[in-house]
Amino acid sequence: MTEDLHEPAHRRRGVVPAFGGIKTFMRLPHVDGLDELCGCDFAVVGVPFDTGVTYRIGTRFAPSAIREMSAVLRGYNPALGVSPMEHLCGVDIGDTPLVPGNAVESMQLIEETVDSVVDANIVPVCLGGDHSISLPILRSLAKRHGPLAVIHFDSHSDTWNSVYGDRYNHATPFRRATEENLILPKNSIQLGIRGSIPGPEDLANARKLGFTIVEADRLLSMDPEGVCRLICEVVGDRPVYLTFDIDFLDPAHAPGTGTPEVGGPSSAQALSYIRRLDLTHVRGVDLVEVLPAYDPSQVTSLAAACIIFEILSVMALSKGEPDS
Amino acid sequence: MTEDLHEPAHRRRGVVPAFGGIKTFMRLPHVDGLDELCGCDFAVVGVPFDTGVTYRIGTRFAPSAIREMSAVLRGYNPALGVSPMEHLCGVDIGDTPLVPGNAVESMQLIEETVDSVVDANIVPVCLGGDHSISLPILRSLAKRHGPLAVIHFDSHSDTWNSVYGDRYNHATPFRRATEENLILPKNSIQLGIRGSIPGPEDLANARKLGFTIVEADRLLSMDPEGVCRLICEVVGDRPVYLTFDIDFLDPAHAPGTGTPEVGGPSSAQALSYIRRLDLTHVRGVDLVEVLPAYDPSQVTSLAAACIIFEILSVMALSKGEPDS
Amino acid sequence: MTEDLHEPAHRRRGVVPAFGGIKTFMRLPHVDGLDELCGCDFAVVGVPFDTGVTYRIGTRFAPSAIREMSAVLRGYNPALGVSPMEHLCGVDIGDTPLVPGNAVESMQLIEETVDSVVDANIVPVCLGGDHSISLPILRSLAKRHGPLAVIHFDSHSDTWNSVYGDRYNHATPFRRATEENLILPKNSIQLGIRGSIPGPEDLANARKLGFTIVEADRLLSMDPEGVCRLICEVVGDRPVYLTFDIDFLDPAHAPGTGTPEVGGPSSAQALSYIRRLDLTHVRGVDLVEVLPAYDPSQVTSLAAACIIFEILSVMALSKGEPDS
Amino acid sequence: MTEDLHEPAHRRRGVVPAFGGIKTFMRLPHVDGLDELCGCDFAVVGVPFDTGVTYRIGTRFAPSAIREMSAVLRGYNPALGVSPMEHLCGVDIGDTPLVPGNAVESMQLIEETVDSVVDANIVPVCLGGDHSISLPILRSLAKRHGPLAVIHFDSHSDTWNSVYGDRYNHATPFRRATEENLILPKNSIQLGIRGSIPGPEDLANARKLGFTIVEADRLLSMDPEGVCRLICEVVGDRPVYLTFDIDFLDPAHAPGTGTPEVGGPSSAQALSYIRRLDLTHVRGVDLVEVLPAYDPSQVTSLAAACIIFEILSVMALSKGEPDS
Amino acid sequence: MTEDLHEPAHRRRGVVPAFGGIKTFMRLPHVDGLDELCGCDFAVVGVPFDTGVTYRIGTRFAPSAIREMSAVLRGYNPALGVSPMEHLCGVDIGDTPLVPGNAVESMQLIEETVDSVVDANIVPVCLGGDHSISLPILRSLAKRHGPLAVIHFDSHSDTWNSVYGDRYNHATPFRRATEENLILPKNSIQLGIRGSIPGPEDLANARKLGFTIVEADRLLSMDPEGVCRLICEVVGDRPVYLTFDIDFLDPAHAPGTGTPEVGGPSSAQALSYIRRLDLTHVRGVDLVEVLPAYDPSQVTSLAAACIIFEILSVMALSKGEPDS
Amino acid sequence: MTEDLHEPAHRRRGVVPAFGGIKTFMRLPHVDGLDELCGCDFAVVGVPFDTGVTYRIGTRFAPSAIREMSAVLRGYNPALGVSPMEHLCGVDIGDTPLVPGNAVESMQLIEETVDSVVDANIVPVCLGGDHSISLPILRSLAKRHGPLAVIHFDSHSDTWNSVYGDRYNHATPFRRATEENLILPKNSIQLGIRGSIPGPEDLANARKLGFTIVEADRLLSMDPEGVCRLICEVVGDRPVYLTFDIDFLDPAHAPGTGTPEVGGPSSAQALSYIRRLDLTHVRGVDLVEVLPAYDPSQVTSLAAACIIFEILSVMALSKGEPDS
Repeated sequence: MTEDLHEPAHRRRGVVPAFGGIKTFMRLPHVDGLDELCGCDFAVVGVPFDTGVTYRIGTRFAPSAIREMSAVLRGYNPALGVSPMEHLCGVDIGDTPLVPGNAVESMQLIEETVDSVVDANIVPVCLGGDHSISLPILRSLAKRHGPLAVIHFDSHSDTWNSVYGDRYNHATPFRRATEENLILPKNSIQLGIRGSIPGPEDLANARKLGFTIVEADRLLSMDPEGVCRLICEVVGDRPVYLTFDIDFLDPAHAPGTGTPEVGGPSSAQALSYIRRLDLTHVRGVDLVEVLPAYDPSQVTSLAAACIIFEILSVMALSKGEPDS
Repeated sequence: MTEDLHEPAHRRRGVVPAFGGIKTFMRLPHVDGLDELCGCDFAVVGVPFDTGVTYRIGTRFAPSAIREMSAVLRGYNPALGVSPMEHLCGVDIGDTPLVPGNAVESMQLIEETVDSVVDANIVPVCLGGDHSISLPILRSLAKRHGPLAVIHFDSHSDTWNSVYGDRYNHATPFRRATEENLILPKNSIQLGIRGSIPGPEDLANARKLGFTIVEADRLLSMDPEGVCRLICEVVGDRPVYLTFDIDFLDPAHAPGTGTPEVGGPSSAQALSYIRRLDLTHVRGVDLVEVLPAYDPSQVTSLAAACIIFEILSVMALSKGEPDS
Repeated sequence: MTEDLHEPAHRRRGVVPAFGGIKTFMRLPHVDGLDELCGCDFAVVGVPFDTGVTYRIGTRFAPSAIREMSAVLRGYNPALGVSPMEHLCGVDIGDTPLVPGNAVESMQLIEETVDSVVDANIVPVCLGGDHSISLPILRSLAKRHGPLAVIHFDSHSDTWNSVYGDRYNHATPFRRATEENLILPKNSIQLGIRGSIPGPEDLANARKLGFTIVEADRLLSMDPEGVCRLICEVVGDRPVYLTFDIDFLDPAHAPGTGTPEVGGPSSAQALSYIRRLDLTHVRGVDLVEVLPAYDPSQVTSLAAACIIFEILSVMALSKGEPDS
Repeated sequence: MTEDLHEPAHRRRGVVPAFGGIKTFMRLPHVDGLDELCGCDFAVVGVPFDTGVTYRIGTRFAPSAIREMSAVLRGYNPALGVSPMEHLCGVDIGDTPLVPGNAVESMQLIEETVDSVVDANIVPVCLGGDHSISLPILRSLAKRHGPLAVIHFDSHSDTWNSVYGDRYNHATPFRRATEENLILPKNSIQLGIRGSIPGPEDLANARKLGFTIVEADRLLSMDPEGVCRLICEVVGDRPVYLTFDIDFLDPAHAPGTGTPEVGGPSSAQALSYIRRLDLTHVRGVDLVEVLPAYDPSQVTSLAAACIIFEILSVMALSKGEPDS
Repeated sequence: MTEDLHEPAHRRRGVVPAFGGIKTFMRLPHVDGLDELCGCDFAVVGVPFDTGVTYRIGTRFAPSAIREMSAVLRGYNPALGVSPMEHLCGVDIGDTPLVPGNAVESMQLIEETVDSVVDANIVPVCLGGDHSISLPILRSLAKRHGPLAVIHFDSHSDTWNSVYGDRYNHATPFRRATEENLILPKNSIQLGIRGSIPGPEDLANARKLGFTIVEADRLLSMDPEGVCRLICEVVGDRPVYLTFDIDFLDPAHAPGTGTPEVGGPSSAQALSYIRRLDLTHVRGVDLVEVLPAYDPSQVTSLAAACIIFEILSVMALSKGEPDS
Repeated sequence: MTEDLHEPAHRRRGVVPAFGGIKTFMRLPHVDGLDELCGCDFAVVGVPFDTGVTYRIGTRFAPSAIREMSAVLRGYNPALGVSPMEHLCGVDIGDTPLVPGNAVESMQLIEETVDSVVDANIVPVCLGGDHSISLPILRSLAKRHGPLAVIHFDSHSDTWNSVYGDRYNHATPFRRATEENLILPKNSIQLGIRGSIPGPEDLANARKLGFTIVEADRLLSMDPEGVCRLICEVVGDRPVYLTFDIDFLDPAHAPGTGTPEVGGPSSAQALSYIRRLDLTHVRGVDLVEVLPAYDPSQVTSLAAACIIFEILSVMALSKGEPDS
């Protein structure tokens, strides 16, 4: 038992095991009153909004599922040589209010909640919900930071004008964001795009708006260094929004999502890209489209939690030095 | 092989087996152009709208799942001694247009589609979707038939005023229908109500509006004859809307639904009530809230298909005589 | 640790736990060579044949699944006050050879295997497979015992003449058995029959053949004593074949089956009937139609294992006295 | 929108929907420091310990799963006419520390955590974990209240001496509790006992120790009033421990558990017993053996959440008057 | 709303969403009477026959599942720059009649149905079912086109002589087809072969018959151009049958199949081969062995739908020019 | 039928199909009495012990699940050109006794069982259970062979000192084995290590103990020849223990495990390493951490069975010559 003293505290007798306890992301402190946010580097914000999806639905349960699986994460990232929470101060503020079934009202409520984070100069790390949530988050960020460059991992461009006559849903956020001058399409890059689309104009339009689009075939033929060099070139040193749609991953690696597309990258490849990003200027992050009802083995939630951990690790590195 | 001739045609060699073929409800003919409806008694109408739900979501896949499981239904109902399709002419008109994520637009589109059925003097048999779809269906029916009496099987009263500030969702249709004078609350009965609610005023309000409410405890203590006598007393010989929320059933019998409530009736009990109904004056039917993503053994879809078959059987009986 | 000595051997340190070990039914000895059968009372025989089904398929994995769940059974039946294996000597002979996809060949192979059991004057307790397996088992039994009375728990009568022109499948065994003079329809009783059928002639034909049919509605309105009195009257003291189709149970209690029918009895009711049977003259038993691929919580396999245990308990009682 | 003002606050725009937010039981405040407990009536305590099970394992995820499904509970219980949280002050203190795989250490850690609740004169409402957790909870309670009467809903008596030579597991807690003088077996009652057991001595021993045992068959033949009269007679006005093993319910109603037993009561029946209990003298509560990995439709977690809500409702009633 | 006019029709208000409607493959018109086929380029034909499988079974539900998931396909293929349905006229004729459990009868019925397609000079695109269906399809095709070259993606060679004494099942179709002179083994190529086999003679025999076999290890070491060059060399400009067994894919990408083999290609790799094929002379296509009961996240059905879409895209390209 | 004679016996009429029969690993003979072991080369030993896990639990069902899926394995390995069972004599001795929930007792019981195999000079091929079982197996092996070199495929190093104060669990076996002088860390190699860890010291400590660690990133950048050259260099010609934790594979390839880590190798890569190993000096093998409850499509159990088959194939090759 004396040996126990040599263990890190969280491995000693008398702690709640990983699978136990009230589930916040990686057991970050849960902060209700936003005045407690002061001094933090980032805040995890659940946005369980899924009204905007066009096929399989239920990402409202994703924040819960990702928090649950984040319990398997431990503090140190050996691939990057950093313990992100030793460099970054983070909290989990729970989920935003919203009105299920009402996109307009919900987007306003989401924006208000994110405002309180952004106003405190804290990076919001948002757990969707579907991809329509990027719009209100970007509205909030652009108010403070001006239009942002976007690093966008996804199988879909999400720059349609409307779906079934509806203009606010998970297929349109980056069109709306461009129209509302929230993002800089010419400094924005979409990676992993693939799968059938209504017509050739869909991607052509996105390119016309200015987006750099790296289709999956081309992505898979590049090495991670090349991918990240290209991202750097497009984004430059502008303030960045990083948005990760879990359907960027191949369905083998992320079956639990609403509109999966075959022929995508593996989780190993996804990590290899993230690890090489420069996130010095990141102003906001989201990870969207995890759908727990179609994820019986929880591999999708796990991938989501790991991707956020990797993003936080890179953010930590851009603040301090790697741990020895 | 000669013996084969004594078999009914659908059991002979050379037919597509039950599990095969394009799936309409019970293999009813699929009618696209509504002019083909003429002379029918009923039309199956899928309404895959689920934007209005407050907890687990995904009933948009229910019409497909119910049609799939309806393949196990055969033509004759031995409990009632009737082959419904020999007395009733029915078609499956597929699903209504709608805008996922937009309740107001969708309700208008649903109403338009149902109008075309109702205008042809055909009983719409609607497969939800969530319970909010009853409102546009009732709007259509009331235009032609005036306000209707409602026989309502459910664990929830669905007469709230709003949820999260939203007035059009699966918790409010019968409040809206009362306000819009589409139904006759004093001739309407709700059976199977149970489970926790926000406050005592919820059921009190429903009763104040005029609804007769038979809570699950009381229902389970009555015999089927008594239940149906009570329904008869309340409804009388007014035009009737029959709405069946699958969460009327206990979760053991219908696990695949969004807001299940324990302590409910079995499917055997549900059938025993339906069989004793008088549906001479039925003007419309819906079956709602089947959620295939939480129904791994398909028992909920099966129960839904069987309940509709039982309703059709009773409708057939009120037209003709039982088969010998 | 000394206290350990007061425990029954199977609860002491040093045994393989219930979930461990090679899985035979209730850990009965596995006998390969049939000469070892000598002196046994019963033999468990797996018959993983599912070619004969008309809807969901895969009962070929049922013998494995039932053996697996039989691990939770312990030796003593408190409801009947008997430890069946103290009165009966049993073995598990594994599964019969068969040719998946070829009913005629398979039935011959099944019959041959059952012959070796029946010739040794041992009661075969067969784990299906689909209900078509009753035919070759009855062929074997009738060779030795003459035509048998049948106690038949099922939601389907299984007395059709053919399906899609095919005469040997899970909808026809008791028609074939009647034609081949293997059973005594006038001394046979079918309990739990329900659900839609092709036409009124289906049950009428079965009744014309002589079967006593207790439809589910009537069954559920009787008490267990009445049910068993009726069985006794029909069967008398003739040699008996007991066949239990797991779809006799309501889908809430047995979701894992190919053609479930709602509105059936609970497992508690099933046990209440079996416990009151007189099985003094039982010559063969089968339990069929468990479909593991649709049974994610294993409740159907569990019910099957428990029903067989209850049958063995009653068989034990008819040999000896209840244990004090 | 003005109408919104007439809605209860939690239904207005601007709140986090039921499916959102950090999940405590029914959104009770999460209290970390135990000094904040002061003045509470009850504290929810997760005990994710499952080392003590003998068959299917994984109840360590049950506190999380029950908290998740408790989101569907609303404040008012119409069957009892009471809003429990208006009469009772409750908190959720998260989960106890423990050492997975080490029963002796874990029991000590569980006892220590429960001590802090009991010492503050607060009723612990514990979410297992497996049934072995009742022992350390009873150790804590008996230190303060002396030996307790036990109302025990279960399919198993859990009074074995040992399993595989091990004396501390989910089959032995009430034997140990008797030996350690923590409970009053003569004032303790076990309801729902059923299923095979190693030998007749198992239940005989439990009865010899003094327990009143109501086997499932007898229970199902009694009416709820009779059941509760019997409980009252046995328990009297002694301090009470209420322990509810979810496998008391039939597997149709609670498939997600480790050692299910067929032939049990429905959830409706369970609620009917609980509603009629006198819990004036209750000192502690546990609900154990929910196993999420075998509960794909979450019906077991839902049943568990509802049963706890019903217990809290009865506790509230014994404090105040029913709400009008 | 005016902007709506700029959207393609299927994205405007008033259409049935992707998840709605009666499910044909990609919403192709459903044609019942075969005289309506006239002038089509291809016809989707469901062949829900699974009697011929040797391990996990249930591909009878695959045509339904693939049609369901084909709803996510949109009209334009950006990887190939073509909208297949603008170049090809296609219909869905539903499923063939067959006799479940009877291979000989079923093969005759399948052949008859395919005859009516082939006689109209239309390419049948067949959705299995198990791989035994290739035989009757080839019988039909060879009657019109003479023996065909076969491009065969699979993990198994399917050239055994018999299994358990049975000669017509999913392990033997290409042996039978060779014997019946339906195919040209010397111009046929099998790609992806892997996994254990009964003995070295199995593959040796296939090679002796003339088949070119590219085992998975070798395939994975080649680049897509090399693979397709080899296919071209073997097949030449002969009339071609393309058969795709979904177990060609690694189980990570296609878990829902009956006899999965680890160590296979990804869906990205599969698409890369198909895109480079020359299908100018294709006379028939099948995609077989999807098993929905083992595909909880629908990734296998999705892969199947996408592979057929890719095949149709290549077929369209060989007719016209790529879309700009 | 005459042709049947040319088929290998196991494919002829009259055999039990692959899915049938009592399930031992690859239908090896089940040996109960250990005296029958004499002369064997290897013995499959199930070790269903899972008390030592720190997150998702239930590997106690893995030996059963792996045996079940091993039914799809056929005798000949075409990639290596060998039929392992023609060169090796093997048996399946079932599962070891153990005490669920008690690590110390269980390890002693496991060691005793393995002793009986090792004493007969037979290679134990152990099916876990969790990774803590390697310790008692190594204790047994080291008694006879002295300390062993370890080839260790895993995502975790499993060389922690303790977890929650507990020293004997699935995170510590190779630390304990080093301390107890059972293995040669300087001749041991760990491949595939990845994922977050508590701190940098964790891997540093393992390296300090002498282990060669090949992290996943580096592994994925090497070719199989290079990997195996490195293994050879580390291990030399010392007696070898081969331990394969299924979480070595990426979760896409092995979702059914307790602590999955994204970013791992595919099953194709795993096979490519194993095929190139030199197993001349292998003294023991284990495959651990398969968790059937999270493996709905059985791909993890399948991968496990195939990996063992590949190991046996390599062992056969090191004994004899490849089959022609």
